[in-house]
Amino acid sequence: MTSQDRDIMPEISCAEEVSTPNLSELLAAGDREALTAFLKALPPDELRRGMAQLSEEQQQEIVQLLHPQDAADLIDDLPDEQAADVLEDIPADLAAAIVEELDSDDRADVLGEMEADEVRAILEALPPEDADETRQLLSYPSDSAGGVMATEFIAYPLETTTDKILDDLRRNREKYSYYNLQYFYIVDRGGILQGVLRLRDIVLSPAPRPVRSVMIHNPDTVRADEDLDTLQHILEVHSYSALPVISGTGRLLGVVLEKDVAEAVRKDANRTIMKLAGIFGGEELRSMPLLARAWGRLSWLFVILLLSICAASVIHFFEGTLLKNITLAMFLPVVSGMSGCSGNQAVGLSLRELTIGIVNPRDLMYVLMKEIKIGLVNGLALGAILGIVSFLLKNDIVLSIIVGVSLMMGTVLAVCLGGTLPLLLKKLRLDPATGSGPILTTIADSAGFFFVLCLAQILMSVWGI
Amino acid sequence: MTSQDRDIMPEISCAEEVSTPNLSELLAAGDREALTAFLKALPPDELRRGMAQLSEEQQQEIVQLLHPQDAADLIDDLPDEQAADVLEDIPADLAAAIVEELDSDDRADVLGEMEADEVRAILEALPPEDADETRQLLSYPSDSAGGVMATEFIAYPLETTTDKILDDLRRNREKYSYYNLQYFYIVDRGGILQGVLRLRDIVLSPAPRPVRSVMIHNPDTVRADEDLDTLQHILEVHSYSALPVISGTGRLLGVVLEKDVAEAVRKDANRTIMKLAGIFGGEELRSMPLLARAWGRLSWLFVILLLSICAASVIHFFEGTLLKNITLAMFLPVVSGMSGCSGNQAVGLSLRELTIGIVNPRDLMYVLMKEIKIGLVNGLALGAILGIVSFLLKNDIVLSIIVGVSLMMGTVLAVCLGGTLPLLLKKLRLDPATGSGPILTTIADSAGFFFVLCLAQILMSVWGI
Repeated sequence: MTSQDRDIMPEISCAEEVSTPNLSELLAAGDREALTAFLKALPPDELRRGMAQLSEEQQQEIVQLLHPQDAADLIDDLPDEQAADVLEDIPADLAAAIVEELDSDDRADVLGEMEADEVRAILEALPPEDADETRQLLSYPSDSAGGVMATEFIAYPLETTTDKILDDLRRNREKYSYYNLQYFYIVDRGGILQGVLRLRDIVLSPAPRPVRSVMIHNPDTVRADEDLDTLQHILEVHSYSALPVISGTGRLLGVVLEKDVAEAVRKDANRTIMKLAGIFGGEELRSMPLLARAWGRLSWLFVILLLSICAASVIHFFEGTLLKNITLAMFLPVVSGMSGCSGNQAVGLSLRELTIGIVNPRDLMYVLMKEIKIGLVNGLALGAILGIVSFLLKNDIVLSIIVGVSLMMGTVLAVCLGGTLPLLLKKLRLDPATGSGPILTTIADSAGFFFVLCLAQILMSVWGI
Repeated sequence: MTSQDRDIMPEISCAEEVSTPNLSELLAAGDREALTAFLKALPPDELRRGMAQLSEEQQQEIVQLLHPQDAADLIDDLPDEQAADVLEDIPADLAAAIVEELDSDDRADVLGEMEADEVRAILEALPPEDADETRQLLSYPSDSAGGVMATEFIAYPLETTTDKILDDLRRNREKYSYYNLQYFYIVDRGGILQGVLRLRDIVLSPAPRPVRSVMIHNPDTVRADEDLDTLQHILEVHSYSALPVISGTGRLLGVVLEKDVAEAVRKDANRTIMKLAGIFGGEELRSMPLLARAWGRLSWLFVILLLSICAASVIHFFEGTLLKNITLAMFLPVVSGMSGCSGNQAVGLSLRELTIGIVNPRDLMYVLMKEIKIGLVNGLALGAILGIVSFLLKNDIVLSIIVGVSLMMGTVLAVCLGGTLPLLLKKLRLDPATGSGPILTTIADSAGFFFVLCLAQILMSVWGI
């Protein structure tokens, strides 16, 4: 590793000079033009990286130096949590001017990551109409249709004709240049959605026609409280690239774009990865203040610490047994740790099968049956190997039997538990990605210690050792 | 938990009767019409779930009973690995008839999961043109532009005009009904891409015009070997919904759709979740044969078993120390396990920051500095708590100092290692999601054991215990 380290070091030390100092130098020079040009030329990941390595104060200075429209473009490229951190601590009227330039759905995403007080201050500084719309969007959970939808869509009255629509599109081509022109929404005078018109259908019908005769009647819609899974399924089944969102009375509220659903699902997957690692909310960034970051991690670690002391206290009750055969001490963490690993594989598989929809909480028995079998096979294999290795190391057949059999039992238990825990937690409406790991590890650990030490006590008393 | 178990049980037992038996009953009855209607009415996740719980033989019977077009629709809704398993074991000419009905990119995804022999048999049974195209698509890695692209696109010659294109679209509206009509590709006689024409630009230009004057010249393109990250960035920066893929000579090979990139990225995130849980390739499904599943998990567990025996062998060298103070045995797994947890948080954070592009391997020093600080804060907090709790439990101040200080040192080490390992592995072109966990756990475990026992030996000899 040392020779490779040497290869890596020079590049590491020069990395600092590549982009971060450029950004802080430009900031120190206070040259808005140069800074704007530099930021526009940076690819989005270099921009995120450069910003992430500045202090929060520097990030705020940059955003305040830029023109609001350019600042909005920058904010749009940052992860939501980072964007929220930057906007939270600059004057509310400036933050509002930047927020105003964001698309409605991005605006809600960023504000959704802020403290309630800061959100209120920004909303008060927004034009009343934008503020109302944003307040409405913020009222939906981020993983619902309302939370993902955008309020930018093009709607036409039911009485219009295809040639009038074409006229409107041609007259307002500048205004519509940022719109997705694939679907138009046809509403009655009360704003109730009556149909969806596709650009292709306007194009493919040669003569001017009333929209009634070209539009899709009774189009698929979703309610604002529909969840991400359902959205993804509807979009998947019909290959739609957008889906209208309606209120209880059928009023058109907004549009969910397929790419925004995909992004929300991707964020969800990333949050799962974070949760599996023991970081919750998915909001830690290394640019955040030290104590906030430390506390975010500690709150979970404290729970785990108490659980692991409970699990280890099993050992306390068998100290006499351990004193008689101190070699067992080396194998205690091996048996409990390996059981935990096997169990975590089953947890991972169940989380994935829940995500892609091939199991659901009602399949507990099915999963249990499948996992018992694999637990027996893998338990036998791992137990045999640990038995053989421990015999080679210690030349003690009783020890080998104890650790081999314990690992087998621990594996079966952990695998069954790991496979079913995510389903059980989901059934109880708890988050499977958060709870499964700690519960599994605690039980697998204490069971591993118990199996080894209890079996040792029994065998030693049988054989009178 | 028991009362809740009782609440859950009835639903579990009736779940079996809801969908799976219906599917197997319909299959047993052999009624193609009824089966087709039933499958079409099932939402995609219920369909995946129902299929996943049938045996592979039953899944194959269903696919063979259906009309190839309907079988293709079914195959399209299944995860690629499951679809591949089903098609692998039915006669190659029937599999080919089904595969022929799939879109080119889905076809490549499913065949990409099969054994080389089966792929060859199916390709031989396909019409030569489809076979060549599929062979070409299979030659690209699944995480490259070539692996994600579809070969269904609409191209027009450079000499045409917008009214001729509209005529063609109107004449062939049936044929194009499954095409995305947002972009058309303009090529010269040699198939070299000359420009991209958007449907909106045809619509918004009122009079018939030569495509040369309406199309986007020098459009953004990617080469077939471009990786997913780059694709995602280009699509993100420009908000394109599709991107043409060209050969080295500029010939148009296919089109990458934004939704297919999003799906590939989602699959990638799921594979990361699987890898963190210790299941590689992401291909285990509970409907697969037992021994294949067991082996898939064991191959990784064997490595971890050997690593964990190595880590635990530290304890072997301190058996004398442990015999003198057997209470330490209970705290060994607590210190090593907690260090591992803290380290895993840092691994998770670095994996995420690598994914969203706010760190890259050159930022090793930056990450190390950030993690040292958080390691000191969290190490102090956790060490203090473990010290206090152990004192309350055992009333032994020396023991408390040993375990508290060890946990502090273990936390700092594990957090620094966990933060930097993913970057180092990425730098060395190894997969960070696969390697980081096992390496971290092994080092954190042995360090935890070593700190506790070594400190105990020193303090006991100092104080002459």
